[in-house]
Amino acid sequence: MPLSANNPDRKSWLHVDKNSDFPIQNIPFGVFLTRDDIITIGTRIGDTAIDLGALHQLGYFEGIPLTDDIFLQDTLNDFIADGRKTWRLVRNRIAEIFDADNTSLKDNVKNKEVVLFRLDEIEMQLPVQIGDYTDFYSSIEHATNVGTMFRDPDNALLPNWLHIPVGYHGRSSSIIPSGIPVHRPQGQTLPAGATEPVFGPSKLVDFELEMAFITTDANDLGEPIPVNEAEEYIFGLVLFNDWSARDIQKWEYIPLGPFLAKNFASSISPWIVTLDALQPFKADNPKPLKKQLPYLQQSAKKNYDINLEVAIQPEKAKETVVTRSNFKHMYWSMSQQLAHHTINGCPVNSGDMMGSGTISGPTPDSYGSMLELSWRGEKPVKMQDGTERKFINDNDTVIMRGYCEKDGTRIGFGEVKTKLLPVFEPKKTK
Amino acid sequence: MPLSANNPDRKSWLHVDKNSDFPIQNIPFGVFLTRDDIITIGTRIGDTAIDLGALHQLGYFEGIPLTDDIFLQDTLNDFIADGRKTWRLVRNRIAEIFDADNTSLKDNVKNKEVVLFRLDEIEMQLPVQIGDYTDFYSSIEHATNVGTMFRDPDNALLPNWLHIPVGYHGRSSSIIPSGIPVHRPQGQTLPAGATEPVFGPSKLVDFELEMAFITTDANDLGEPIPVNEAEEYIFGLVLFNDWSARDIQKWEYIPLGPFLAKNFASSISPWIVTLDALQPFKADNPKPLKKQLPYLQQSAKKNYDINLEVAIQPEKAKETVVTRSNFKHMYWSMSQQLAHHTINGCPVNSGDMMGSGTISGPTPDSYGSMLELSWRGEKPVKMQDGTERKFINDNDTVIMRGYCEKDGTRIGFGEVKTKLLPVFEPKKTK
Repeated sequence: MPLSANNPDRKSWLHVDKNSDFPIQNIPFGVFLTRDDIITIGTRIGDTAIDLGALHQLGYFEGIPLTDDIFLQDTLNDFIADGRKTWRLVRNRIAEIFDADNTSLKDNVKNKEVVLFRLDEIEMQLPVQIGDYTDFYSSIEHATNVGTMFRDPDNALLPNWLHIPVGYHGRSSSIIPSGIPVHRPQGQTLPAGATEPVFGPSKLVDFELEMAFITTDANDLGEPIPVNEAEEYIFGLVLFNDWSARDIQKWEYIPLGPFLAKNFASSISPWIVTLDALQPFKADNPKPLKKQLPYLQQSAKKNYDINLEVAIQPEKAKETVVTRSNFKHMYWSMSQQLAHHTINGCPVNSGDMMGSGTISGPTPDSYGSMLELSWRGEKPVKMQDGTERKFINDNDTVIMRGYCEKDGTRIGFGEVKTKLLPVFEPKKTK
Repeated sequence: MPLSANNPDRKSWLHVDKNSDFPIQNIPFGVFLTRDDIITIGTRIGDTAIDLGALHQLGYFEGIPLTDDIFLQDTLNDFIADGRKTWRLVRNRIAEIFDADNTSLKDNVKNKEVVLFRLDEIEMQLPVQIGDYTDFYSSIEHATNVGTMFRDPDNALLPNWLHIPVGYHGRSSSIIPSGIPVHRPQGQTLPAGATEPVFGPSKLVDFELEMAFITTDANDLGEPIPVNEAEEYIFGLVLFNDWSARDIQKWEYIPLGPFLAKNFASSISPWIVTLDALQPFKADNPKPLKKQLPYLQQSAKKNYDINLEVAIQPEKAKETVVTRSNFKHMYWSMSQQLAHHTINGCPVNSGDMMGSGTISGPTPDSYGSMLELSWRGEKPVKMQDGTERKFINDNDTVIMRGYCEKDGTRIGFGEVKTKLLPVFEPKKTK
């Protein structure tokens, strides 16, 4: 099916700023609460949010096989389960409806009133009910930095790292959309030199710059997904801040992996940018440093060129961009992650989310966490307001942004913006 | 509220075998497909399955605040979210309806026809949509055995083990009810002495004898659950077989924990036995071997005395019971697990599932996995049919059973029974 929605020459009759992440070539999907307190599925062009439930009720998706209530839901799971053919028909139709030459909605004031919203009239929700969330560890720069700091600089990568897209299961219930604040977690840590742990607030709260992809129903129990078919099952991507408490992690993670150090919160950008919209931004795969087993051997260009940055904004001060990285640096691709995840027959469903792991670039100003940027606190990061950061302070806001750009077309993710609040204080009851 | 459903003197007008796991004092909850291909929520007394959706429509729950469709659902999540007070009202009412002295349903042939089913007329389903699944590692005997085999017999427990109810996230999508077969997983393993991994079927497929508890909506993001309130949020328990591929695990698990070695399948018994029904079988907590941090210090009797056994049934042969253990051996209780899981503010929701970890007893005939029973293959386990097992063979069926017994009342879980099939062969397409 032709991806006419990706046509770089198309203009919309809706206003789109020159540097917007959301031109008519993007057409992401999200879920929002409207000014009338109704939850609906929507998309966005420029700074206008579009109610797809209303568009559908008004007949604008006629001819596309959709159930009546497919967009009148509080998650995208059912729409995603409808599969790639349906996603494409809908994205192409949206592109047509908002094409500068199409007057069917443009000139219908009454319809526009129920379909279009200013961004300040809506409240973005979590776009999917996440059945399972998996986090990978697929940046070779990140794995090398961590291995260098905590193990052996000469053998920074563990023996399995170049053979396996290492991953582990995370917690779905604490994945939250941009804008929801997070409390500094409490927990057990082992002070330097001590033999008994102490209890208290984490002193080393960190972000991890990641992207996450969202899948559709992919396979039955027992059935692997071939690496070169894997993209068929990827609906789209979001920015992902995998909040981490380094001191809790250090004490708890042997032998079964990170747990409370990670599951207090992960924050995502609310608009899912489709893999279809990202097709013009494919990038070469990195050359494997060791021969990969056949089930992981992929055809060309499974990476994506997505510019990423993280800023820290202290309370009542301007933000400072602390790192700039790129999703193209991933050693293991999303296709390899999905092939590996299912090689044992593990079922993948609509709404599952898979994080990339921290995306560090090759240079010290492109590392994807404060742990690496401050080199575990040895090199504090200077802020515009004159303060320094080794990790994240109470009341700091962490902002991640990402976009692709090529030949004058920019497709972006918006941002994921999260304030770190002090430790949770239980409400006093009389 | 009095737990009249637990009255040990009550008899039912439904037939109950002397050794049944499901006397009228049990009243578990499950989801089944009826002879009319309808999915409903039900309970079980003796060998009779009871359609709670039909009972509700016929007015038998009058006076209890329940939505009309609460039992006409394909999962128990909404009912569980209604909270403990509602569960108790419903269990008490079911006990009254089926009390030997109550004729309201007993003498109504027409109503009985739509409410009661023989077990061979129904097909048990997964009872909940599992939002998140966590697995703990809370048996000191199991942790000691594993540490002795793979690390250092003199320091078998890792430094954090006596301070933390160690846990990690697992995969919800591959949790299946009793009766669904599992394929032997394929994956990467590192042969002894090799430096490069090979790909193929796991040679060391194992069961893990566990129990799992199911929670209700417990807390908001940021809010910990106090250890001595934790049981308020536990709906009930099931038997849990945490299938494991030991060779895949060994190669993949450092540093982020088990992944493909576990997520190919976990099997559960389909009837959730409520924590209320288990109250007569409370057991003392084990004495802590190290002082526990205040948030883990619990009042008395948070353990439960539940007899457990595992049998292996080779194809076309009789089963052999290979181990007998007990849930009371757990070093860390469910209350401590839940308090630890939420001390950082991680939200726990209705339908979440938490596994105990392998439940090994103190003697070699009470270990909870073949890894321990055969001491990593050094001591093969003899079967009734003359064969031996180090791990699980293709076409073996693994059966777990569990029950409590005291003063003539027996409350049981039935069984979780799963056949291990050979490696999955993709269907040939023309």
